[in-house]
Amino acid sequence: MMGVEFDFLDKIPVAVLGATGSVGQRFVELLSHHPWFDLTTLAASERSVGKRYKDAVNGNFQFSLPEWVAELTISSCKPPLSENIIFSALDSSIATEVEASFANAGHTVISTAKNYRTASDVPLLIPEINSSHLKLLDVQKFSGGKIIATPNCSAIGLAIALKPLHDRFGIEALQVTTMQAISGAGYPGIPSLEIMDNIIPFIEDEENKLESEPLKILGAIQQDRIIPAEMKISAQCNRVPVTDGHLECVSIKFKKKPSREELIEAWRSFKGDLEGILLPLKPEFPIHYFEDEKMPQPRLQRDLDRGMAVSVGHLRECPIFDYKFALLSHNTVRGGAGGAILCAELLVKKGFIFW
Amino acid sequence: MMGVEFDFLDKIPVAVLGATGSVGQRFVELLSHHPWFDLTTLAASERSVGKRYKDAVNGNFQFSLPEWVAELTISSCKPPLSENIIFSALDSSIATEVEASFANAGHTVISTAKNYRTASDVPLLIPEINSSHLKLLDVQKFSGGKIIATPNCSAIGLAIALKPLHDRFGIEALQVTTMQAISGAGYPGIPSLEIMDNIIPFIEDEENKLESEPLKILGAIQQDRIIPAEMKISAQCNRVPVTDGHLECVSIKFKKKPSREELIEAWRSFKGDLEGILLPLKPEFPIHYFEDEKMPQPRLQRDLDRGMAVSVGHLRECPIFDYKFALLSHNTVRGGAGGAILCAELLVKKGFIFW
Amino acid sequence: MMGVEFDFLDKIPVAVLGATGSVGQRFVELLSHHPWFDLTTLAASERSVGKRYKDAVNGNFQFSLPEWVAELTISSCKPPLSENIIFSALDSSIATEVEASFANAGHTVISTAKNYRTASDVPLLIPEINSSHLKLLDVQKFSGGKIIATPNCSAIGLAIALKPLHDRFGIEALQVTTMQAISGAGYPGIPSLEIMDNIIPFIEDEENKLESEPLKILGAIQQDRIIPAEMKISAQCNRVPVTDGHLECVSIKFKKKPSREELIEAWRSFKGDLEGILLPLKPEFPIHYFEDEKMPQPRLQRDLDRGMAVSVGHLRECPIFDYKFALLSHNTVRGGAGGAILCAELLVKKGFIFW
Amino acid sequence: MMGVEFDFLDKIPVAVLGATGSVGQRFVELLSHHPWFDLTTLAASERSVGKRYKDAVNGNFQFSLPEWVAELTISSCKPPLSENIIFSALDSSIATEVEASFANAGHTVISTAKNYRTASDVPLLIPEINSSHLKLLDVQKFSGGKIIATPNCSAIGLAIALKPLHDRFGIEALQVTTMQAISGAGYPGIPSLEIMDNIIPFIEDEENKLESEPLKILGAIQQDRIIPAEMKISAQCNRVPVTDGHLECVSIKFKKKPSREELIEAWRSFKGDLEGILLPLKPEFPIHYFEDEKMPQPRLQRDLDRGMAVSVGHLRECPIFDYKFALLSHNTVRGGAGGAILCAELLVKKGFIFW
Repeated sequence: MMGVEFDFLDKIPVAVLGATGSVGQRFVELLSHHPWFDLTTLAASERSVGKRYKDAVNGNFQFSLPEWVAELTISSCKPPLSENIIFSALDSSIATEVEASFANAGHTVISTAKNYRTASDVPLLIPEINSSHLKLLDVQKFSGGKIIATPNCSAIGLAIALKPLHDRFGIEALQVTTMQAISGAGYPGIPSLEIMDNIIPFIEDEENKLESEPLKILGAIQQDRIIPAEMKISAQCNRVPVTDGHLECVSIKFKKKPSREELIEAWRSFKGDLEGILLPLKPEFPIHYFEDEKMPQPRLQRDLDRGMAVSVGHLRECPIFDYKFALLSHNTVRGGAGGAILCAELLVKKGFIFW
Repeated sequence: MMGVEFDFLDKIPVAVLGATGSVGQRFVELLSHHPWFDLTTLAASERSVGKRYKDAVNGNFQFSLPEWVAELTISSCKPPLSENIIFSALDSSIATEVEASFANAGHTVISTAKNYRTASDVPLLIPEINSSHLKLLDVQKFSGGKIIATPNCSAIGLAIALKPLHDRFGIEALQVTTMQAISGAGYPGIPSLEIMDNIIPFIEDEENKLESEPLKILGAIQQDRIIPAEMKISAQCNRVPVTDGHLECVSIKFKKKPSREELIEAWRSFKGDLEGILLPLKPEFPIHYFEDEKMPQPRLQRDLDRGMAVSVGHLRECPIFDYKFALLSHNTVRGGAGGAILCAELLVKKGFIFW
Repeated sequence: MMGVEFDFLDKIPVAVLGATGSVGQRFVELLSHHPWFDLTTLAASERSVGKRYKDAVNGNFQFSLPEWVAELTISSCKPPLSENIIFSALDSSIATEVEASFANAGHTVISTAKNYRTASDVPLLIPEINSSHLKLLDVQKFSGGKIIATPNCSAIGLAIALKPLHDRFGIEALQVTTMQAISGAGYPGIPSLEIMDNIIPFIEDEENKLESEPLKILGAIQQDRIIPAEMKISAQCNRVPVTDGHLECVSIKFKKKPSREELIEAWRSFKGDLEGILLPLKPEFPIHYFEDEKMPQPRLQRDLDRGMAVSVGHLRECPIFDYKFALLSHNTVRGGAGGAILCAELLVKKGFIFW
Repeated sequence: MMGVEFDFLDKIPVAVLGATGSVGQRFVELLSHHPWFDLTTLAASERSVGKRYKDAVNGNFQFSLPEWVAELTISSCKPPLSENIIFSALDSSIATEVEASFANAGHTVISTAKNYRTASDVPLLIPEINSSHLKLLDVQKFSGGKIIATPNCSAIGLAIALKPLHDRFGIEALQVTTMQAISGAGYPGIPSLEIMDNIIPFIEDEENKLESEPLKILGAIQQDRIIPAEMKISAQCNRVPVTDGHLECVSIKFKKKPSREELIEAWRSFKGDLEGILLPLKPEFPIHYFEDEKMPQPRLQRDLDRGMAVSVGHLRECPIFDYKFALLSHNTVRGGAGGAILCAELLVKKGFIFW
């Protein structure tokens, strides 16, 4: 039973669905040494069931794998499991049904899949930004369980960087061009012959997400529904030869143009909804602003605050809109498994989850 | 004496200033097997003068170097030289004076340096686009010689792609985000530790050029001056881990929004000022439009038409402006030495140069 | 009917089996503008049959594709075809049967697959090195047709570099460590997540080939069989983040240690079996020796002589064996499609093939 | 005053010479959060003296820099400093004099520079391997202070992997080919244009070090001098496009060939001189053996045990020598700053240093 004091006698058992994929591996890596959560079940597709995890990933685990995790036997992605908290990194081709089946069996599913992101009763959660959206859980219709969705990897960093600006100055429109890391395409993902010494100016179905998800994330909750934020977003998404970290170039127009100093102050002073709350994966600062015009850069800042911070820099005036700037976030940590685990930490802390 | 028929008895001797640098090396590579031009003088800074070219570049020549070029002795960058046509790849710290000294000694200087690009009597020349600007040469004040400037490497591709659109539909504004290859930074240029597995969201003084040069390039000539095109450009420039080829993501707003088909037709049918003229480095088509939404890509299209073509693709509607698309051009060929050599070819063909 | 004078009235029609794969694409690229050969049939697996080539490769063609090739309809890999000369880039899982079926239907099959490389009656052909091995064709048992095998991509460059040394000084043993380009793994091949900012010190079944194939290639023909060269080879193979070009570090022990000058002279003066013969893909020099100790390098020399030359350099004494040096060759041109096409050119020139 | 119990009341103050360079930055990064050492002085060349550290590195610090370090003022590299322990990452052009001046002023200098590595009275220290060599400090002639050298970045990993093999089976000879990361060349180091999509088969003065340093490191101490190990090493060194981590392919011949199992057991059971000693940067296991033939790989294992472990794998028989295997170590941590800090930790623990 959770206590506000977090004097857990035992860690909280959790399971990962889709544990062998790229985001699944990042869940495993982050959960294998988590102070609150005990990774007790790894589930994957039928062809992996019964294998040891290390055999199922076949030497292609992207991290150093503790021996006890390597030896875990893969389970089937079928409810019920003994864990209440279920992290889902399922492929979108099956996530709709499987996640619903877990929610209907009473589990709390926190998912990085896109399937429920647009559902009107599912929060698209970034704990620092829109924890009030958890109110949607009251109206979810699953029997006993719940589903919480986390945003697209490129939308998370953008939404966090926009939040304090939208609150203070009102965003009217923005153009964003992304340079997204290869790890965002999963495994095996992009063949090396396609991306080495190259850029691909296209990512399937990505621009659509980046143009729509921030509106829901930054929306206000009224009674039991989200009123999307009113702003126009135009996105251009590129795949670049970088291992981790999505960099985004933004040109932004406000309802009322702030001064450069006001803008920087908005980022620097931003605390968000987690102010005063202690959570293991919570970044010290959600947003780091860099005065150096050469920043942020994927290799230098992606691991800031253990990959959970958003870095912003190179702020200057835009000859067409108001300002231009660059932002960076780690796509498989902040924008993937880490962001989902932070959601679970908040749910536990707030008493939404019992186990 | 040149003949319209180009039944040259002999090739035309040419010189390269700044021959040991990155763009200089590309000049040497392209001129070492040019059908019209005979590369007879390589000039560089004082510390290289008197050395054989291969010793001056010290094994760091980026191409296969013919033996006769490798053995050429480096000259000083001082006029007069026996060649009339002088290609300048000088560093901007010295180009103002040196290029003027050559022009005042009667030489025709074609330069990739930025120094004279904004001078009101110097054409910023892209042969297919604005050959009418050569009229400015009539009012240049150098004694006997002339200076022709070529645009910044990222501005050339953009200006070519914009030309048929501006002529037909009128461009009001555009946002452009570039992903620029490392060869654009010269040699030694970017340290590998800075760019491997990384992106740098900043290029010194680049956005300013990209926001202003197209206005002069696309401007109309009235009497003896250029009336800059009226459009607003906002640029964000990034350095990416790609060897050659600048990729640019454009969002564009027209005075009168064309249909998608009209836009594609404008690119596909574009011939430009060189229609019907045969020049060695002239691309078969200045603009190649790709229907495949994954194109253009640096490694796949940068060498199209021997690096002289501009590739355009991934055209789709923009939720804020009218359309979004991606464009690509080879930064050291089309956007550097190749573009400058094409200028010289045009000058020879049109009878501007005697030798 | 071929003529020694090569005053072909028409080009010779050729087909490519496995045309959609990585080596197959290179065949298509090199044959699409070949002066002797006319690429008339592209064959591939059943799921591609009937599609246009451009649709079958689905935008993943690694080169610029002429429109007439893009529009070719894919045929089935079943004999007979109307072409006599068949280039095979088939996967080894099916090459044994399919290639035999074509040879038994009277075709001349030139294959980059490994399947027939060790067959005692199949020449492992490098035209400059062991054209005498074509005598094996006399004893092949296929009905009407023949099979010629080309060596593994890393064995070809090594065998060429060793040939003049073995002839003059007798090689006793050599250790070779390879750094092999990603294009050697085919398409989709290596996932970018596995090789970016990384090296994989293992290539399936590669060291075995590199330790054995040169013995057959450098072997003497006696009556109707090859007597393998007597030398010991130990290989260590690595996959590196380079697009094209295999670099190999060799430490070599001779029966009689030559001087450094003798060794260099052996490479520099090497002409091989093609001396005096004109073939379209024949390199000007099979071996280029570089005095500069930083050479050869993949990006600088892989395209030498249109990718058909082997580059050798950084020669120095070995504290254990006699000498150490580095060698480089283009793995999909010299070590793949280009090498196979050169075989066909030789067969045509020597009158082995009628069409 | 140090205590065996390490109940330090205060941390031990340390200084870094050459703090702005590549290895210097790694020292700063590792020392900025070290449990025993307090980084109190950063010294660098005269042109940096008086600047804040963050200004001296000018935005090119390769890591996340704590604010208190960023604000430190750069000192001059002149003795005396108030710290006893001095880490030197000085350039070899000045290290001989400057390090001696500090040793003569009573400081304990631990250096990654090559200058004193071959001095007969200077230990070439790897704490796990040859801590007995510290006896040489008794015969050093500096007034009051001492110099300890750490080996070349590619020699450290090799020597650690060889140690248990040489002790048990006696190494007769080995050939090693390295693939070395760009961070090993310092900053600015290798221009990106030279190494992207490329390999350079040459590293200045590196093969010589790799062929000689292990002999001293693995040598026995007799009275006051080192008797070098008797084995022959032949090295071939390559620079590859990898950020961190040197991979080495070894072919090895023993005095008495062990079985594969004996060899693996020798690595797996190796504890070294630090068994039972607790030091902050000591790896849990100095050597990790991987059964998976695709291992070790730079990106997957370089950070094992916080970058201080050596990884070994892909063991198989050699047709010429006895065995072949691959090894990996982090060049700027284990092979640079981390290795040097571990030396200092040992000196403190053993009571060699007072402060």
